[in-house]
Amino acid sequence: MDTEIRRLLEEVQKGSVSVDDALLKIKTEPYEDLGYAKVDFHRKFRQGMPEVIYGAGKTPEQILGIINSMRGKGQDKILITRLSEEAADFLSNQQGFEYKKDARLVTIGYKSKADGIGKIVVATGGTSDIPVAEEAALTAEWYGNEVVRLYDVGVAGLHRLLAHKEEIMSASVIVAIAGMEGALASVIGGMADCPVIAVPTSVGYGASFGGLSALLSMLNSCASGVSVVNIDNGFGAGYLASMINHMI
Amino acid sequence: MDTEIRRLLEEVQKGSVSVDDALLKIKTEPYEDLGYAKVDFHRKFRQGMPEVIYGAGKTPEQILGIINSMRGKGQDKILITRLSEEAADFLSNQQGFEYKKDARLVTIGYKSKADGIGKIVVATGGTSDIPVAEEAALTAEWYGNEVVRLYDVGVAGLHRLLAHKEEIMSASVIVAIAGMEGALASVIGGMADCPVIAVPTSVGYGASFGGLSALLSMLNSCASGVSVVNIDNGFGAGYLASMINHMI
Amino acid sequence: MDTEIRRLLEEVQKGSVSVDDALLKIKTEPYEDLGYAKVDFHRKFRQGMPEVIYGAGKTPEQILGIINSMRGKGQDKILITRLSEEAADFLSNQQGFEYKKDARLVTIGYKSKADGIGKIVVATGGTSDIPVAEEAALTAEWYGNEVVRLYDVGVAGLHRLLAHKEEIMSASVIVAIAGMEGALASVIGGMADCPVIAVPTSVGYGASFGGLSALLSMLNSCASGVSVVNIDNGFGAGYLASMINHMI
Amino acid sequence: MDTEIRRLLEEVQKGSVSVDDALLKIKTEPYEDLGYAKVDFHRKFRQGMPEVIYGAGKTPEQILGIINSMRGKGQDKILITRLSEEAADFLSNQQGFEYKKDARLVTIGYKSKADGIGKIVVATGGTSDIPVAEEAALTAEWYGNEVVRLYDVGVAGLHRLLAHKEEIMSASVIVAIAGMEGALASVIGGMADCPVIAVPTSVGYGASFGGLSALLSMLNSCASGVSVVNIDNGFGAGYLASMINHMI
Amino acid sequence: MDTEIRRLLEEVQKGSVSVDDALLKIKTEPYEDLGYAKVDFHRKFRQGMPEVIYGAGKTPEQILGIINSMRGKGQDKILITRLSEEAADFLSNQQGFEYKKDARLVTIGYKSKADGIGKIVVATGGTSDIPVAEEAALTAEWYGNEVVRLYDVGVAGLHRLLAHKEEIMSASVIVAIAGMEGALASVIGGMADCPVIAVPTSVGYGASFGGLSALLSMLNSCASGVSVVNIDNGFGAGYLASMINHMI
Amino acid sequence: MDTEIRRLLEEVQKGSVSVDDALLKIKTEPYEDLGYAKVDFHRKFRQGMPEVIYGAGKTPEQILGIINSMRGKGQDKILITRLSEEAADFLSNQQGFEYKKDARLVTIGYKSKADGIGKIVVATGGTSDIPVAEEAALTAEWYGNEVVRLYDVGVAGLHRLLAHKEEIMSASVIVAIAGMEGALASVIGGMADCPVIAVPTSVGYGASFGGLSALLSMLNSCASGVSVVNIDNGFGAGYLASMINHMI
Amino acid sequence: MDTEIRRLLEEVQKGSVSVDDALLKIKTEPYEDLGYAKVDFHRKFRQGMPEVIYGAGKTPEQILGIINSMRGKGQDKILITRLSEEAADFLSNQQGFEYKKDARLVTIGYKSKADGIGKIVVATGGTSDIPVAEEAALTAEWYGNEVVRLYDVGVAGLHRLLAHKEEIMSASVIVAIAGMEGALASVIGGMADCPVIAVPTSVGYGASFGGLSALLSMLNSCASGVSVVNIDNGFGAGYLASMINHMI
Amino acid sequence: MDTEIRRLLEEVQKGSVSVDDALLKIKTEPYEDLGYAKVDFHRKFRQGMPEVIYGAGKTPEQILGIINSMRGKGQDKILITRLSEEAADFLSNQQGFEYKKDARLVTIGYKSKADGIGKIVVATGGTSDIPVAEEAALTAEWYGNEVVRLYDVGVAGLHRLLAHKEEIMSASVIVAIAGMEGALASVIGGMADCPVIAVPTSVGYGASFGGLSALLSMLNSCASGVSVVNIDNGFGAGYLASMINHMI
Repeated sequence: MDTEIRRLLEEVQKGSVSVDDALLKIKTEPYEDLGYAKVDFHRKFRQGMPEVIYGAGKTPEQILGIINSMRGKGQDKILITRLSEEAADFLSNQQGFEYKKDARLVTIGYKSKADGIGKIVVATGGTSDIPVAEEAALTAEWYGNEVVRLYDVGVAGLHRLLAHKEEIMSASVIVAIAGMEGALASVIGGMADCPVIAVPTSVGYGASFGGLSALLSMLNSCASGVSVVNIDNGFGAGYLASMINHMI
Repeated sequence: MDTEIRRLLEEVQKGSVSVDDALLKIKTEPYEDLGYAKVDFHRKFRQGMPEVIYGAGKTPEQILGIINSMRGKGQDKILITRLSEEAADFLSNQQGFEYKKDARLVTIGYKSKADGIGKIVVATGGTSDIPVAEEAALTAEWYGNEVVRLYDVGVAGLHRLLAHKEEIMSASVIVAIAGMEGALASVIGGMADCPVIAVPTSVGYGASFGGLSALLSMLNSCASGVSVVNIDNGFGAGYLASMINHMI
Repeated sequence: MDTEIRRLLEEVQKGSVSVDDALLKIKTEPYEDLGYAKVDFHRKFRQGMPEVIYGAGKTPEQILGIINSMRGKGQDKILITRLSEEAADFLSNQQGFEYKKDARLVTIGYKSKADGIGKIVVATGGTSDIPVAEEAALTAEWYGNEVVRLYDVGVAGLHRLLAHKEEIMSASVIVAIAGMEGALASVIGGMADCPVIAVPTSVGYGASFGGLSALLSMLNSCASGVSVVNIDNGFGAGYLASMINHMI
Repeated sequence: MDTEIRRLLEEVQKGSVSVDDALLKIKTEPYEDLGYAKVDFHRKFRQGMPEVIYGAGKTPEQILGIINSMRGKGQDKILITRLSEEAADFLSNQQGFEYKKDARLVTIGYKSKADGIGKIVVATGGTSDIPVAEEAALTAEWYGNEVVRLYDVGVAGLHRLLAHKEEIMSASVIVAIAGMEGALASVIGGMADCPVIAVPTSVGYGASFGGLSALLSMLNSCASGVSVVNIDNGFGAGYLASMINHMI
Repeated sequence: MDTEIRRLLEEVQKGSVSVDDALLKIKTEPYEDLGYAKVDFHRKFRQGMPEVIYGAGKTPEQILGIINSMRGKGQDKILITRLSEEAADFLSNQQGFEYKKDARLVTIGYKSKADGIGKIVVATGGTSDIPVAEEAALTAEWYGNEVVRLYDVGVAGLHRLLAHKEEIMSASVIVAIAGMEGALASVIGGMADCPVIAVPTSVGYGASFGGLSALLSMLNSCASGVSVVNIDNGFGAGYLASMINHMI
Repeated sequence: MDTEIRRLLEEVQKGSVSVDDALLKIKTEPYEDLGYAKVDFHRKFRQGMPEVIYGAGKTPEQILGIINSMRGKGQDKILITRLSEEAADFLSNQQGFEYKKDARLVTIGYKSKADGIGKIVVATGGTSDIPVAEEAALTAEWYGNEVVRLYDVGVAGLHRLLAHKEEIMSASVIVAIAGMEGALASVIGGMADCPVIAVPTSVGYGASFGGLSALLSMLNSCASGVSVVNIDNGFGAGYLASMINHMI
Repeated sequence: MDTEIRRLLEEVQKGSVSVDDALLKIKTEPYEDLGYAKVDFHRKFRQGMPEVIYGAGKTPEQILGIINSMRGKGQDKILITRLSEEAADFLSNQQGFEYKKDARLVTIGYKSKADGIGKIVVATGGTSDIPVAEEAALTAEWYGNEVVRLYDVGVAGLHRLLAHKEEIMSASVIVAIAGMEGALASVIGGMADCPVIAVPTSVGYGASFGGLSALLSMLNSCASGVSVVNIDNGFGAGYLASMINHMI
Repeated sequence: MDTEIRRLLEEVQKGSVSVDDALLKIKTEPYEDLGYAKVDFHRKFRQGMPEVIYGAGKTPEQILGIINSMRGKGQDKILITRLSEEAADFLSNQQGFEYKKDARLVTIGYKSKADGIGKIVVATGGTSDIPVAEEAALTAEWYGNEVVRLYDVGVAGLHRLLAHKEEIMSASVIVAIAGMEGALASVIGGMADCPVIAVPTSVGYGASFGGLSALLSMLNSCASGVSVVNIDNGFGAGYLASMINHMI
C-alpha cells in the first residue's frame, strides 16, 4: 500500500499526475456497489482467494446480480455456499454452474490444481454429518487441495477411527466434524501432529440443543492444536484448512 | 407390605390385636423427627443400603444430632458426604470417624466386604478430577465393591487409555469421570460391554461453564449403555455402580 | 485380544503364517466401509449386543445399504430407531420388517427370549410420554426382557403411582419417563431399591424449554440410584436397562 | 379516590377551599423523600399491610433513616428482610428490634394476632432449605397467621411426607420450599386442595445452576393450584400466603 | 382416611367384613385404568374440583376414551384444555360440547354459578395476549367466578391502566397476563391489595426468547403478593384464581 | 396537565362548570375501548408522534377496527408494522394504504417533510439485513427525516465501510444493523461522533442463536455512544433515531 | 480528512513538502503507544469528547502512565471509570483528582458548564441502584449537563413515580436505571416524549441472574423511544445522554 | 507404526526376538504412571512438541512429581501453564525455572530458536487482555517463533489498528485476543490473508457473561480464515499458531 501511495506522491511531485486525479485514485472504491451488496474485487489480492457468495438470505435475483458484477470484472471462478435448491434452479443455466445438492454448494469455473503442502483429511463422527463435511471437502478441493474423506468414524467405535491412523497421522490439516457430543475433535487432536479444525454440527436431538453440546465440547478440547468454527460451518473449515495447507 | 397388613388384619380378626393398636402400627412413622431433619430408619430395608448424610448445607450440630439419632437406633455404619474440613474437625472425636479430605467423605464403621459381581472401574480424564473420583471410589468400596482406579486417562492421549483396555473390557461397571469436553464417557462407552456411569466435573475454565460442557457432552454420548449423574456427583455414581454390581 | 495376537505371533514364529499375512490380519478392519457409513461387525462380540441403526439423518437408501451389508455378514437381527414413516414405507418390503409407528422403531428378526434377572418397569408421568416409553419398552423386549408398562402415573396424582407400589418395589430395573417437571424419577427413586434410569421428555410447553426442565430436575434428583439419559432417548434407556438386567 | 376528589371539588365550588389549596392537596405526595429512598405511607391503606424494608443493597445508615422516617409517621410495626449480620449489629439497639439470624429477618414491634382462615403449612424438601423456610414462616406469623412447619419431607423418602398427609390436606395455604429437583411442589400440589406457593431454593450443586433447576421444575408443575415466586424468596411466599389466608 | 380405615378395621374385628374383602377395599384403585391414561375419580373429593383433560399430546381417540370413562362414573362436567381444532371437530358431536377456538378450550356441562368471594380481574398487556387470557377467564367462569376482562392495558400507556384503577383496587384476585417485558404484573401488583397471579406469554420476538423475558421479569417483581405460573398457562392461572376466590 | 386541572378548578369555582362535568372531564378516557384494544388518542400530544399499530398477533379484522377507530377521531396518518402479506391483502383497499413487503410495513397518509437536525444513516453488515434496515429507514422517513442507506458494509471488508467515512462522520444519528457477530456497531461507534443505535438481527446460523450473538456483542460495545434495541427491531431504531434527530 | 490530504498533496505539488515528509505525515500515529495501551489524542476532535480511562483490569501503574501521557499532550480533563478504592488511593495525590467512591468514578479537571438542550433525568427503581445512577449522573454533569435525580421511584409504588410526572415529561433525555424486573424503563418510556436510555442493573437475586432479567425486560420494552446499554453501564448511559442533549 | 510392527514380526520370524519379548514390546506403555497422572513421553515424537503441564487443579507436589518424571526421561524442556503464585513459589528452586506472573506461565529450559515460516502477530483489543496475550506470546516464543505484540488496538479506535496494517498484512499467523464484544477478530480477519486464531477473554462485565459474548461473536465472524479457541486460552492459541507457523 505504502509503495502505491509513494509512487502516486512522486507522480504528483513530478507533475505527471494532477492533485485531483491523485485524490480520486486514493478514494476510488475497490468494489462495485449494487445497492443491496458491495461486490469486493480487491479481496483476491488482499487475501489471495476470490470472493465467495454466501447464498442464504439473498434472493436468486440478488445472487445473479452479484455473479454478473463479478464476471464483468473478469472474475471467472466463483463459489456460492448455502444455496437453496430453488435458487440453484433459477441460476442453473449460468455457464459452468455446478450444484452439489447435499452440500448446497455451487462452483462456477474450473477447480484449482491441488498444490498444497499435503493432504487435508475431512472426518465425520456419523453419516448425518456428511452434508457439512462435503461443504468442507468441496471447498478445500476447489481451492486446490487433495482431500481424504473419513466418514462415520465416531469415537463410540474406536477401531473404525484407529484403522485410519495412518491417514490421520500423515495429514497436513484435519477437519473434524461431529454433532452430538463432539468428542471426535479431541480424539483426533490427540492422535495427530497437525492443526485440527473442529466443526460442531447440529446433528442430534434433545440436549444437543442445536449443536451447542458439540460446540462446547470442542471448545473445551483437552487436545492441543484444536480450534473451532461455527456450528455447521463446513465452508469456513474448508477455507481455513486450505489456507493452512498453502502456508509458503 | 401386603403380607404385613394381611397378618395384622388377621390378628385383628382373631382379636389378638386391638383396633387401636393396629391403627397405631399402620401409622407409626418409620423415622425420627429431629425438627430440622427426619432421620430415616426404614430405608435400610426399603433400599438395602443404610441412610447417607449429605453434609453440605447442614451445621455440624445438626449432623451430630443425626448421627446420634442413627446410633440410638443401632445404626452402626454411616456415610457422610460433602463434609467441610471445619465440620469434620467438629465431629472428629466420634468413634470410628474417618475423614478423607480430598473426597470430603466420612465413614463411620467398618467397610463392607467386597462381594459384588465383578470389579468397578473408576476412570478420570485428568488429575484434577481425582477428588470426585475418590468420592465415587470410596463410596463403592464402603458398600462392598472392589474398585480399580484409572486416573488421568483422558482421550487426548489415547494410548494411555488403550493401555488399560483389559481392565475396561473386563469391568462389571465403569464410572467415567471427566470435566472439560467430557469425551471420556463416549470413548469408554464404545470400548466396554458393561454399564457406564458418566460423571461430568466442574474442572475446566471458560466455555466449560462450570461443568455444563461435560454434562451436555455426556448426555449426547453416541455410545450405548451410558447414563449420567449430576456434575461432580461422585457419591451418586459410586452408589449406583454398587447397586448394579450387586444385582442378584 | 492378547491371546489372539500371541497365537498369531506363535504361528509367525513357527512359520505357519507369513509376516505379510500376519500384518494383514492385525490390520483387517472389523467393519464394512460403505463410504457414508462403516458397518460394525465386531460390536456383537465386543458389547454382546448387535449393531443398531440410528435412522434419523440417514436417507432410506443409506439405511437399506447398511441392512444389506449386515445381512451379507449373517446379521439376522437388526433394530432401527427413529425411522420416519416415509423411510419405513420405503423399507417395508424387507423380510421380517416390523414398524411400530408411535415408537418410530423397526425390528428385523425375532425378539430374543426374556432371560433377564427380573422385570423391567417402564413408567411414564403422562399419556403424552408414551411414544418415548414404547421406544424404551420395545427395545428392552427385543433384547430379551420382560417389561411391565405403568403409563400415566405422574406425581400430581400420587395414589395412581402408589397403587403400583408392588410392581415398583419388585422391579429389577425401572425406566422413569416424564416431561414437564420430571418429578417422577425422584419419587420412584425413593420408593424403589433398584437402578432407576430417568428419561426426560420434550413433553410440555413454555418453561419446559424442550425438555430442559425435566432434564435438570432428573439430574438433581435427591434420590440415590438414579441416572439420566438424553431427552426423549427411549432407546438408550431400554438398552441400558437390558444391560443391567443381564448382569451375570 | 373518586369520592375524595368529588368532595374536594364540592368544597372548591362552595368556596370553602381555594383553588391553590385544592391543587396542592391533589398533588401532595403520600411518601417522605429521603433522597436515597421514598418511604411509602399510603401503602398500609392501599395494600392493607405496612411497608417492608428490603435490606440487601442498602447501607445500615440508609436503613436507619428509613426506620426513623417510618416511626416519625407513627409506623410502629416494621419488617426488615435480607439484613446482614453486620447491619443487624448496627441497628440492634433500636427499640423492639429482633433479629433472626438464619432467616436474616428483623421484626420491630409486636407480632399480629393469628386471625387467618386456617393454618399455613411451610414445608421443605431438606434441612438446607430451612433458612428460606424460616423467612417465609416468620413473615407469615408476623402478619397474623398460625404456621405449621414440616421440614425435611423431600419426595425421595415419600413416607416422611405421607406421614403428614393430614396437615397437608387440612391446610389453608401451603408454602412448598425445595432446591435441587424441586419435586416437592408437585407432590404436595397433587395431595392438597388449597393454593400452593412454590419457592425454589438455591440449595444444590452442579446442574442445579443456582436454583434454576428447581425453578423450572416448579413452573412446569403438572399439579393445579401451584404458583411460583423467585428463587429463595421466602418473604414473598410468606406475604402472599398471609394475603390468601386473610381473604374475607 | 383414618376414619375409613378405622371403620373397616372395626368391621373386620366384628367379623362383618372378611380379611380378603378388607384387603381388596384398601387396595381398590380410585381411578379407571385405560392403559394410556389413568382417569382419576377421587380428585373431585380430594381437591374439590373435577378432573381436567389436558388435550395437547393426546390423540382424539384417547380423549374420547377418557370422556367416556368419566361419564361412565357420572362425571357430568368436564373441561378440556389445549385442544386443537382437528380434535375439536372429531369430538364436536359429544353432548354439551362447547369449543372456544381462541382459548382452545372445551366445556362439557353447565357452567357453575358464580359464588366466589369477589370478582376476578383478568388483564392483558396487549391484544395478542387475549387467547391466553380467555383460557384463564373461561376457566375461572366455569369454576363459578365472576370475571372482569381488562384487555390491552399495557404499561407503555399507563393512563389506559389507571382508568381502570377501581376495578383493580376492588378485585378479589387478579390475573395479569403479558408477554414482551411483562411489566404489567409489577405495576398491577403495586396498585392492588389482593393476590396477583402473573402469566408470562410467548408474545413478542427477538430477545423475548419465547416468553423467557416476561417470565424472568415477573419472577423478579418488586411488588409483593405476586406469584407466577408457566408461560402461556392461562388454565393454571384461572384455576388458582378460582381456588383463592373460594377460600371459605 | 397542571394547567388544565387548574383551569378546570377555576371554572368550577366560578360556577361555569358543574362538579359532575368536572369529574367527568377528569375521568374521561383518552382512548377508545374496542374490547380487544384500547386505541390511544392522547399519545400524539403526549409523545409528539401518532399511534403505531403493531401488526403481529392481531387479526386483520382487529387491525381494521383500530384503523377505523383512529380515522373516526381524525387520525389521518397511521403506521402499521410487522404486517403479514395476508393481512396486507385484506386491508389493501383502505385509502392511502401502501405496503412495503420486505419491511412488512404499511403507511397510511402522506410522509412527513424531512425537517430533522441532520441526516440519519442506516447501515447494514450484509445483504440479508436489508428487511430490518428498510423497516428502520421507512419509519424514519415517515416521521420526517432524510435517510442515507449504506447496505452491505460489514467489518470483514473494512474498505467498504471506510469508503463511506464521510457519510458516517457527518451523520446526525446512525442506525447500525447487523447479525452474526454484530461488530458493525462498535466499528461505526468508534468512527462517528453522534449517537449510534445498534440493531442486532436474527441473520446467521449455528452459534448466532437467533440473534443472541449480535445482541450480546452490541451490548458489550467498547465504543461510547452506542445503545441497543431488540433483535430485528427496525421500527424501534427508526423511531428513536427520528426522536433524537428532532431534539429542539 | 479529505481537505487535509488535499492540502498536503498541493504542498507536495508545489514542492513545499517533500514526498517523504508527506508520507510520514499521512502515516503519523494520532496516539501515543505505551506498549500496554495506545493513548488516543485524536478522539477529542473525532468525537468531540476527550478520552476516558476504563479503570477495571488496569494496574494503578498503567493508569498513571496513561494520565501522564494525556497530560503530556495538554489533556487537562480526564475521566476515569470503574476505579477500585485501592487504585484511587494510589492515584489520589494527582492534581485535581476527585474520587466518588459509590460511583467508582474519578474526575480530573473542572466540570464543563451545563450547556445542553435541556435537563437529563436520572431515575432509579430502588435504593440499591444508586451507585450505577451516580456513575451516569456524574458523567453527564462532567460533560456539561444539568441532571435531575429521581431515586427509588420503582413501579411497584406507582404514585412515587407519578408524583414526578412533570420532571419526566419535561426532560430532554431520561436515563432509567433498574434491576430486578426492570419495568421502570417501559413505564417511563410510556410517559415521556424524549429518548429514554435504559440501564439494567445487577441488583436482585435468584432469577435476576446477575441483571439478565432486567436486561431482557428492557430490550423487550413495548414503549417506543427506549434503547438499552450494558448491565450496570452507568457511564455509557451518561455519555450517550450528554451526546443526545448536545444535538445542535 | 506399521514399519515398527513389521520389523518386530520379521525378528520374531527370524527367531531373533522371542514371542514374549515381542508381546511385551507391543504392550509397553509409552508413559510413566504416577497414579495421579500418566506422564506422556511418546508425545514429543507423536506430535513434535514436548508435553505441557496444565497447572490448574494440580497440587504443587503433583506438579513436582511430574517434573521429576519428565526429567528422569531426559525431558529438559518443560512448559507449565496456569500456575498460581503459591505453586510457583513452591517450585521456584527448580533448575531453569522461570515464572511470568502475568501470564501464570513457567518455562524450564532454553527457548527454542525462532525458525517459523514468518512472524506471529499477537493482538489485543484492550489493556486488560494482556495476561492472556502474554500466555499466547510466550508460548509461541518458547516453541520457536518470532512474535510481534500489538496491544490495545480495539476496533472502537480503528486508526490504532489501521496504523499497524503492515504488521497485520505481512503476518504468518495472527492471534486476535479480545473480551467484551470481541469484534477484533472479524476486523483483523478481513484485513489479513493468513489464518487468524481468535481468543475470547473473560474481560468485561454485565452482558459479557464471563466471555460468552466475545466467544459467540468470534464464532459468528463473517471473515473467512478465523477459528476460535476456549475463553482465555492463550496457551492453546500460541501452540496452534506455532504449529501453523511450522508447516513444512
